[in-house]
Amino acid sequence: MGPNTFSEGKALAVLIVMDHRATPAQIERVVDVIGEMGYRAKPMLGRQRIAIGLVGNDGRVQSARLEGLEGVRDVIKVSKPYKQVSREWREEDSVVELGTGMVIGGEGVVLMAGPCAVEGREQILDIATQVRDLGASVLRGGAFKPRTSPYSFQGLGVRGLELLAEARERTGLAIVTEAVEPEGVAVVAEHADVIQIGARNMQNYPLLKRAGRIGKPVLLKRGMSATITELLLAAEYLLSEGNPDVILCERGVRSFDPQTRNVFDLTAIPLVKSLTHLPIVADPSHGTGVRSKVTPMARAAVAAGADGLIVEVHPNPPEALSDGAQSLYPEQFAELVAHCGPIARAIGRSLATLQEGAVAGARKPAPLASA
Amino acid sequence: MGPNTFSEGKALAVLIVMDHRATPAQIERVVDVIGEMGYRAKPMLGRQRIAIGLVGNDGRVQSARLEGLEGVRDVIKVSKPYKQVSREWREEDSVVELGTGMVIGGEGVVLMAGPCAVEGREQILDIATQVRDLGASVLRGGAFKPRTSPYSFQGLGVRGLELLAEARERTGLAIVTEAVEPEGVAVVAEHADVIQIGARNMQNYPLLKRAGRIGKPVLLKRGMSATITELLLAAEYLLSEGNPDVILCERGVRSFDPQTRNVFDLTAIPLVKSLTHLPIVADPSHGTGVRSKVTPMARAAVAAGADGLIVEVHPNPPEALSDGAQSLYPEQFAELVAHCGPIARAIGRSLATLQEGAVAGARKPAPLASA
Amino acid sequence: MGPNTFSEGKALAVLIVMDHRATPAQIERVVDVIGEMGYRAKPMLGRQRIAIGLVGNDGRVQSARLEGLEGVRDVIKVSKPYKQVSREWREEDSVVELGTGMVIGGEGVVLMAGPCAVEGREQILDIATQVRDLGASVLRGGAFKPRTSPYSFQGLGVRGLELLAEARERTGLAIVTEAVEPEGVAVVAEHADVIQIGARNMQNYPLLKRAGRIGKPVLLKRGMSATITELLLAAEYLLSEGNPDVILCERGVRSFDPQTRNVFDLTAIPLVKSLTHLPIVADPSHGTGVRSKVTPMARAAVAAGADGLIVEVHPNPPEALSDGAQSLYPEQFAELVAHCGPIARAIGRSLATLQEGAVAGARKPAPLASA
Amino acid sequence: MGPNTFSEGKALAVLIVMDHRATPAQIERVVDVIGEMGYRAKPMLGRQRIAIGLVGNDGRVQSARLEGLEGVRDVIKVSKPYKQVSREWREEDSVVELGTGMVIGGEGVVLMAGPCAVEGREQILDIATQVRDLGASVLRGGAFKPRTSPYSFQGLGVRGLELLAEARERTGLAIVTEAVEPEGVAVVAEHADVIQIGARNMQNYPLLKRAGRIGKPVLLKRGMSATITELLLAAEYLLSEGNPDVILCERGVRSFDPQTRNVFDLTAIPLVKSLTHLPIVADPSHGTGVRSKVTPMARAAVAAGADGLIVEVHPNPPEALSDGAQSLYPEQFAELVAHCGPIARAIGRSLATLQEGAVAGARKPAPLASA
Repeated sequence: MGPNTFSEGKALAVLIVMDHRATPAQIERVVDVIGEMGYRAKPMLGRQRIAIGLVGNDGRVQSARLEGLEGVRDVIKVSKPYKQVSREWREEDSVVELGTGMVIGGEGVVLMAGPCAVEGREQILDIATQVRDLGASVLRGGAFKPRTSPYSFQGLGVRGLELLAEARERTGLAIVTEAVEPEGVAVVAEHADVIQIGARNMQNYPLLKRAGRIGKPVLLKRGMSATITELLLAAEYLLSEGNPDVILCERGVRSFDPQTRNVFDLTAIPLVKSLTHLPIVADPSHGTGVRSKVTPMARAAVAAGADGLIVEVHPNPPEALSDGAQSLYPEQFAELVAHCGPIARAIGRSLATLQEGAVAGARKPAPLASA
Repeated sequence: MGPNTFSEGKALAVLIVMDHRATPAQIERVVDVIGEMGYRAKPMLGRQRIAIGLVGNDGRVQSARLEGLEGVRDVIKVSKPYKQVSREWREEDSVVELGTGMVIGGEGVVLMAGPCAVEGREQILDIATQVRDLGASVLRGGAFKPRTSPYSFQGLGVRGLELLAEARERTGLAIVTEAVEPEGVAVVAEHADVIQIGARNMQNYPLLKRAGRIGKPVLLKRGMSATITELLLAAEYLLSEGNPDVILCERGVRSFDPQTRNVFDLTAIPLVKSLTHLPIVADPSHGTGVRSKVTPMARAAVAAGADGLIVEVHPNPPEALSDGAQSLYPEQFAELVAHCGPIARAIGRSLATLQEGAVAGARKPAPLASA
Repeated sequence: MGPNTFSEGKALAVLIVMDHRATPAQIERVVDVIGEMGYRAKPMLGRQRIAIGLVGNDGRVQSARLEGLEGVRDVIKVSKPYKQVSREWREEDSVVELGTGMVIGGEGVVLMAGPCAVEGREQILDIATQVRDLGASVLRGGAFKPRTSPYSFQGLGVRGLELLAEARERTGLAIVTEAVEPEGVAVVAEHADVIQIGARNMQNYPLLKRAGRIGKPVLLKRGMSATITELLLAAEYLLSEGNPDVILCERGVRSFDPQTRNVFDLTAIPLVKSLTHLPIVADPSHGTGVRSKVTPMARAAVAAGADGLIVEVHPNPPEALSDGAQSLYPEQFAELVAHCGPIARAIGRSLATLQEGAVAGARKPAPLASA
Repeated sequence: MGPNTFSEGKALAVLIVMDHRATPAQIERVVDVIGEMGYRAKPMLGRQRIAIGLVGNDGRVQSARLEGLEGVRDVIKVSKPYKQVSREWREEDSVVELGTGMVIGGEGVVLMAGPCAVEGREQILDIATQVRDLGASVLRGGAFKPRTSPYSFQGLGVRGLELLAEARERTGLAIVTEAVEPEGVAVVAEHADVIQIGARNMQNYPLLKRAGRIGKPVLLKRGMSATITELLLAAEYLLSEGNPDVILCERGVRSFDPQTRNVFDLTAIPLVKSLTHLPIVADPSHGTGVRSKVTPMARAAVAAGADGLIVEVHPNPPEALSDGAQSLYPEQFAELVAHCGPIARAIGRSLATLQEGAVAGARKPAPLASA
């Protein structure tokens, strides 16, 4: 094997910032030169800045050649271990479109709600309608469940995905659901609007790579004891495979006090926002693990600047097949929405609402019996 | 030594709840009987409930004798390891009066602000006036500083206390400052309105016992890796010595990610409020350790239900003798106040403000030069 | 969906312990009855106890019917969330055979050594020979590397596996190497003697399930912040798929002190041994992350009762493509072996040695140049 | 207040290393010059190196003046935040003499054993004799107990100290017991040979300062979530007050798995030994919190290089007033000693034994009845 050409610390990305008066021809020329040098170019035409990313730097990029090109204002080596997710790489906030007309990362705070797991047709259609009517615009629900014990309910699988798709049709809600293995990404992407990578899989790199190539937004949950740097490096796997539509999620980290399931690390929200352009949502259900603490912590997450909330709501929590203790009753979700709206407005935002007409008849679903 | 009559797990408190029509004579009779049985009685005449606590239960209390007394509705064994701090013991929120007319634990969210340490006369009078004018009603500032290194600045000692007292006279702000050893409690109590027990001393029991007998409110900070149960047991030391005026403080706990100084555990706020009647404030300065994260996390703390904030503000943070990296510039504190007001209102509260006239001339201090 | 027939807490395994004089026919009859009841039977013919496990208990097993059968001494509901890995299920230590004649879990303490990653033919053959000559009996080395950054060296893949297989042929060492995705398990099993599941994948259930069906021993590393219960439940995935040959591995857990990469939790060793019959080895390289601490902690792990050590050794650590800072120089590994031998003997064990003749010519490999 | 002359990061100690042929007059001259410069000098006449420490460096020390003096070989700025405890300051291991002829930090591994708390005369004299006869040379036992709950047994106080002193007279064991407040240091020092500073008080600086001036060895336990740097800075408080006789103690740190009371961080042992010249002992009782794990972890601690063990042993653990679950039965302590001896010998050390005749008649105490 040849000399060591890989290194964790080495600057592996370079950013060419163009003069704001740079012509399309000048931009194209930079892209061409990068290609000639043997690297990949990523033009980024932002509102405030036109830049071209150079990916695949092996440490031998001759920046002088790039600096000499016309229209080039600056050549920056990205200093963080993560590159394309960094604020250095992209200054503006990224806004992720969900396909149903909803976006995450804009002014609106998006509410994602639903059961831990899809348990059956009636359950998911019922709760979908309820959370939609109460203000949610995304439906969560697991079809493939990674469970600590092999003897716990593992989800309905593809049948669960089909039920989620049916719920979308009837309610207009976008669907977020988890993929748990590389081979399963395609079928999840076929039915869902957002592919969730769960906390246990945050460093499942084959899964991340596959999700990075599937062409649908990804909700990436922070690992049980992942640092923010590790979270951002996991996101970098997705972006480096070509997927820019990544939503991060704080869901609590492991700590020493058994009174709560996790420590809900809300400081991660402003921290992430300063380090990356990607949006971040918060999961107060896993973050606390205790039903009665979900609403106050949802308020806190919005106040801290979260771009959305993902909340477990079940029509009948005590009979939930998983996570019953942290699932809200629908009426508690109504209260959560009522609390979070004023908080969002207090910081100059608002709760995102499903656009009228986004899905024909979405607001008036046929009664279940007739389905 | 005789048989084991101590035990961590044993119910060591009993609560006698009176019928709401109980007569004073009936209440007195219960108190007398408790005395005859060899225990201490603590009558608690709340708005919603008249109860009498029995302290010193050695596990042999004959509750039948108490249940048989006239006017007694119920005899409850307090099930938690902490007794007098528990919600079982006292249902209503405790409200702590600071002596300057301010209270903590009521509807108003109290802002405590000031430097990590008192560094000199000009510094403390200057910042006191600034934070008062920006909305604070309590001045924080350390005169005795527990420092990790023996070679770090250890505070101005008694001279610092005198300067704090002078700042109170000029501004009307209540003073909170730390006592670091039992022998030092009296002198701190002489100058301050609230005695702070710092995180490192949360389990310094001789210090807690002394502070429990000094007759001034105590601000008890959560230890670096204290569970909520341990925090409440530390508070129990104060109450069991006779001091009901205890304010708890969440200030972050130790965790694994070096990106922030601590993990700011805001779930502690609703959790504490469900377990105890004592008020709780939050310290986003130590909770995050990073200046730019203080304001978003102050907002989050208010949204989570904190009864107050304690924030480090310094006239010139880069030259602070301690904690400069997490101290706000005065203009950043102004921004924090502007952010937190709407959040407080969004949850039906407001920022507490210094009552006009509480201290004559407080709003118009003499210019420093003339002092 | 019908009533909830799954539950995390419910006893999902039952053990039928036979009288020690039970006849084969009586045992067979119990197996048959279990089948008739609709469950799976797992006979376990130990030296000290003959027992039959009943798997798939849905909470409605009528134990009376089993208790009434001839030769049955006891019917035990396994109380732990993990079943087949528990000591209740199997009292005797499990001994895992590696295929090369080596076993893990017996009297001998097995040394596994080698580089973090296979970097090339010369590197792996060189170090394999060296560690073999110094006392190792298993060669470690990653062909597929899960890396925190997408820009770090990701391993040589199948080519790495081939080189490991070549190293086995030349040295007689058994090979342990990591599989990182379900699809990759088969090819790893084809070349390796033991399939490693890394810390990041401890809760990668699709991977565990595949490894549970592949018919080769599995080395399961404890997750970064996994509790012992979670580790044992992850192992249960392997056993419940039919693979009894599981070796656990303590490799340090995440904590708050940046002085070491992890906290090496050696108490896990006696704890695991009291809860499960599976063997456990220790990884002082990841456990400490610091080369100079590997040997003292290897000694401590042996003293605590580890059944083996897995240690990173590189011919030239400063040039290693990964984990250089924690890799030993070969001469340091020699010292580790010299230290650990007496420790093993002090507790009545010994270091396992490669059986002479297990692989023809293994002790005298052809010089590299001629290969 | 003047300009900032304190700073955590600044080099606050300087070491003047003398030529090994330096004359006493030359050494004296260096001491004098340091005094003339306004600093304190600390001559250290080691076997391998003669050096003079300069304490109180305010960052303006002119090292050129010192370098120019005759006999001076080198002038070193100590780079660590801790100074006098660092290996840079003193290369040789420190050996602490306990006053009974025992030393800690030498070749012998010292066994300290006894109950969590002194509960009465019979209990302490009984267990003292037993642990002495089994191989201990130091008796542990709390007279002042810091307890999480105010309702738990708080120790016998001064009466407990007197009983410990009586136990020393009868057995020849040195006594280690805890001081919990500055005012209590003197009375503990009067009766004990070693003053323990407990984990909760590791950063109780007034207590450390008092213990630093009392003239007796101090056993400093690592705080519940203290980093190694913080432990060494706490020790620096003791040394900077003039007490060189400090013994560090690893006793487990707080972590996330409720299966054990703490994570016993044995890597701290080799780590501490590389950073400081002070001895370190290990406490497997608090380190694990579970009786059955104490002996394996005691073995591991000795294998990792601990200079001693401090172990809870009680004549009747189930009736202990505190820490019963982690206290050994005397016969288990006998087993621990039997296990640890061979481990100590395996690494070229031995278990320290009470010197015959160190205390007249110590080996043959009068029967209890006659006392």
